[in-house]
Amino acid sequence: MRTHVLGIDLGGTKVSAGVLDHNGQIVGRARAKTRAWRENDEVFSTIAQVGHTALERAGIDSQSLDALGIGSPGPLDPDTGYIIDSANLRFDNFPLGPRLATEFGCPVVLANDVDAGTYGEFRAGAARGASDVLGVFVGTGIGGGIIANGKLYHGFSKNAGEIGHIVIRAGGPKCNCGARGCLEALASRTAISKDIRKAIRRGRRTIVTKLLSKKAESVPSTTIKKAFQKGDPVVTKIVTRAAEHIGIALGSMVNLLGPEIIVLGGGVIEALYPDMIGVIEKSTRTVAFEFAMKGVQIVKCELGDDAGIIGAAMLATELKPSSQPA
Amino acid sequence: MRTHVLGIDLGGTKVSAGVLDHNGQIVGRARAKTRAWRENDEVFSTIAQVGHTALERAGIDSQSLDALGIGSPGPLDPDTGYIIDSANLRFDNFPLGPRLATEFGCPVVLANDVDAGTYGEFRAGAARGASDVLGVFVGTGIGGGIIANGKLYHGFSKNAGEIGHIVIRAGGPKCNCGARGCLEALASRTAISKDIRKAIRRGRRTIVTKLLSKKAESVPSTTIKKAFQKGDPVVTKIVTRAAEHIGIALGSMVNLLGPEIIVLGGGVIEALYPDMIGVIEKSTRTVAFEFAMKGVQIVKCELGDDAGIIGAAMLATELKPSSQPA
Repeated sequence: MRTHVLGIDLGGTKVSAGVLDHNGQIVGRARAKTRAWRENDEVFSTIAQVGHTALERAGIDSQSLDALGIGSPGPLDPDTGYIIDSANLRFDNFPLGPRLATEFGCPVVLANDVDAGTYGEFRAGAARGASDVLGVFVGTGIGGGIIANGKLYHGFSKNAGEIGHIVIRAGGPKCNCGARGCLEALASRTAISKDIRKAIRRGRRTIVTKLLSKKAESVPSTTIKKAFQKGDPVVTKIVTRAAEHIGIALGSMVNLLGPEIIVLGGGVIEALYPDMIGVIEKSTRTVAFEFAMKGVQIVKCELGDDAGIIGAAMLATELKPSSQPA
Repeated sequence: MRTHVLGIDLGGTKVSAGVLDHNGQIVGRARAKTRAWRENDEVFSTIAQVGHTALERAGIDSQSLDALGIGSPGPLDPDTGYIIDSANLRFDNFPLGPRLATEFGCPVVLANDVDAGTYGEFRAGAARGASDVLGVFVGTGIGGGIIANGKLYHGFSKNAGEIGHIVIRAGGPKCNCGARGCLEALASRTAISKDIRKAIRRGRRTIVTKLLSKKAESVPSTTIKKAFQKGDPVVTKIVTRAAEHIGIALGSMVNLLGPEIIVLGGGVIEALYPDMIGVIEKSTRTVAFEFAMKGVQIVKCELGDDAGIIGAAMLATELKPSSQPA
């Protein structure tokens, strides 16, 4: 009997897998470095290996798998299971869903990684019970997921939810995507990092200089947190401004989408939530209509790194599969 | 037998009604000035009168009404039929749905006016056949409506779609809503009007000065169009900038919502569409991901003033009623 579901969270840095039993409990795990610079086939074999190891540790074989769900950086096509192209992963029109279906002999659902994380929080985490949810994950980049009327929303583009790439400061700093003033260019770790580096180049004094080697291009979230908590004025100002920008985006989203719960996650949030949330909420309220904010909760994700695994697994049992075994 | 549906479009300036037969054809119409400064009961009696006149002209009585749909400025509660408060209409917690249900003896659906307009274009106009639609109406203010997976999206706030109040230039000009840099503060007729007035105060030469009495605070869309088409440099620059801001917002929406069709409507668009659309599209593409723009159409509304009437009538037959007759 097919009793278990495999959830995989594929990232540019690491790939994690978890086997969920019929109660939604993780009964086996595995993870490995993605080493995304390698050939597609090598990366795929790491993904498959991580999945098999998780099954082994759960004490089941793939015949017991009801379905497999995988969250991956996009853009991707959830209908065909293909990754369209993913800079981080060097996947270009890669049949990730079909390959996994063959490998594990079960139906596969392919979803955007942030969508999977949002869905995990919606079904089993901080956004349980709500019907209209916005997930916002602030890390190296900024990603989002939209739950509308209790369902993951894909849109016609099949890749809706890119809240990192809404413009909130027209004419603002250049974003990796080529546009100017995207939220990601103002409030991601990359943006915070850049601003700190710029301040240092301008001769501003900050303890980040001591905490970090001069060569390091990017400033890790933990270093930002340390500097913030020591009251470093440069970092405090930069983090506060990032939080204000996040709040402006959330306020816009309250007006546009009217969510009940906004779940915040990702490396920057995990490190700085208590320090940032006050500023984020205040800034949200400068933009959001009062009536639209009534009853709205802005909360931290509960599942941490498991959100993607659990969300992918839940989607695997609830959505039409992207790919079927031959 | 109940065979007809009454659609009403309630605005701050005028109220229009149309009777739709079972083929969706308008078989009777009426309209009147809202004169919104009057007491609630007086305004309500104008709305009722316009509805009755449309029925008369269609040659039917209210016993033949299957349902009534009304689009109104919000915020409002589509579940109870109450207008929460509407600055334009002086309606404050007003039971518009229940009152109309009693008046016409049929179920009533109350919807946001822009939602009704978007729904009309979705069901019978420029966005027919699409499942994921964004309606953007640029007039005195800027409103929006979201169709997601073939359904009007309300969100938890019950008033989603306020695209006029997403911030696209943080720290930008003050909006009527209190925030800074909202799309409405950058690209509505009010914003364009303000910018033209400001240019005149600064001594810039523009033919608007000739076209308009000095006292007139706001510049009508027709005057803006005339000046633009005569190549007036001040107006050309201001309208172009407004179009660029609209494009930035649309590009953000393509990334966030991934719509198939974006329908543009409202006074500014009706007057300036051919002049603005090139700039709007170009600006949209500076922000939208290429993969997300694939197959996306940005089109002008087809139903004009009828969109609201038709959309309200369609919603009346398709949604759960806000209010039932006693």
